Amino acid sequence: MPHIAVNNELAGIRGLLNFRPETAEPLGDLANILLKDSEGLTPTERELIATHVSYLNDCFYCHNSHGAIACIYLDGDMETVDAVRKDPQNAPVSSKLKALLRIAAAVQKSGKDVTPEMVEAARMAGATDRDIHDTVLIAAAFCMFNRYVDGLAANTPTDLSTYEPRARQVAERGYGKHIFSLQQPVR
Amino acid sequence: MPHIAVNNELAGIRGLLNFRPETAEPLGDLANILLKDSEGLTPTERELIATHVSYLNDCFYCHNSHGAIACIYLDGDMETVDAVRKDPQNAPVSSKLKALLRIAAAVQKSGKDVTPEMVEAARMAGATDRDIHDTVLIAAAFCMFNRYVDGLAANTPTDLSTYEPRARQVAERGYGKHIFSLQQPVR
Repeated sequence: MPHIAVNNELAGIRGLLNFRPETAEPLGDLANILLKDSEGLTPTERELIATHVSYLNDCFYCHNSHGAIACIYLDGDMETVDAVRKDPQNAPVSSKLKALLRIAAAVQKSGKDVTPEMVEAARMAGATDRDIHDTVLIAAAFCMFNRYVDGLAANTPTDLSTYEPRARQVAERGYGKHIFSLQQPVR
Repeated sequence: MPHIAVNNELAGIRGLLNFRPETAEPLGDLANILLKDSEGLTPTERELIATHVSYLNDCFYCHNSHGAIACIYLDGDMETVDAVRKDPQNAPVSSKLKALLRIAAAVQKSGKDVTPEMVEAARMAGATDRDIHDTVLIAAAFCMFNRYVDGLAANTPTDLSTYEPRARQVAERGYGKHIFSLQQPVR
């Protein structure tokens, strides 16, 4: 049960965003830029970084929501999503993404855990300053989103089949107001 | 030295915001709502929560920046700021703020560390659902901001006297674009 009175029709972060629309707007804008931008990192790579960090933070709602979005981008390849979630260094992804996922995992513990060696390895694998910036900020942002969801004990559906329709909505329409509106049912 | 090429005239998060203005905008909007809003929690209480969490995350730049802003709001009472930073349960602040700082410290570790008992104690001390929401989100947001700053090894001035002029600027003008613009020198 959530720690505050939220609308129970809205799962996870959606109920929290609906509770406080003033903060929901910049949070949505931030998610849109960090996760939907296709310059540099692809939306798939961005969602995989978010999924891995959310898994490390043990945030069931977030790693399943973002894992479901990544899975749509990967044409249903949940095996790759699961590999990145749990063991990214052995996942079937590029050496660049592996190096960035190592940085993201360091950020999840503490910003100070990112070493010049990790950054250099990412650069050698083809990462630009912008890719490194976005990786650190995606990882840091999910340390926020995960704590927001679990710190208020948001409603978390345990039935994984409920995540796919919402994921499709985000994949198609982004992180706009529709995700916390009661007037916009899932198609 | 920062992990990416930022403008060295801008300290801490300012150099990072200047590097990527697209993400700077929602980050600034979020900070403005969470830290300058005076409905429910006061701006002083909000900055003290941010300072305590940043101290727990060992983010020198953030706990000194936000400590300096809180100090301005408290008419120069750095003793209270320091007490909240390091030992909030023995600081000269209200029982409501102490209860909220306990929740913020739990969020700093993990969202799951917030217990119904902590929330109930805050409520008994006068906190509303909105206060609890904002406390959790401020604490979560600083787990992001701290990781952003340290994860990219942002330039961190060690001379504490340099924090006051910037703090005054934020106290007066908020977290707008001026904080990462090279065209807006400190008055």
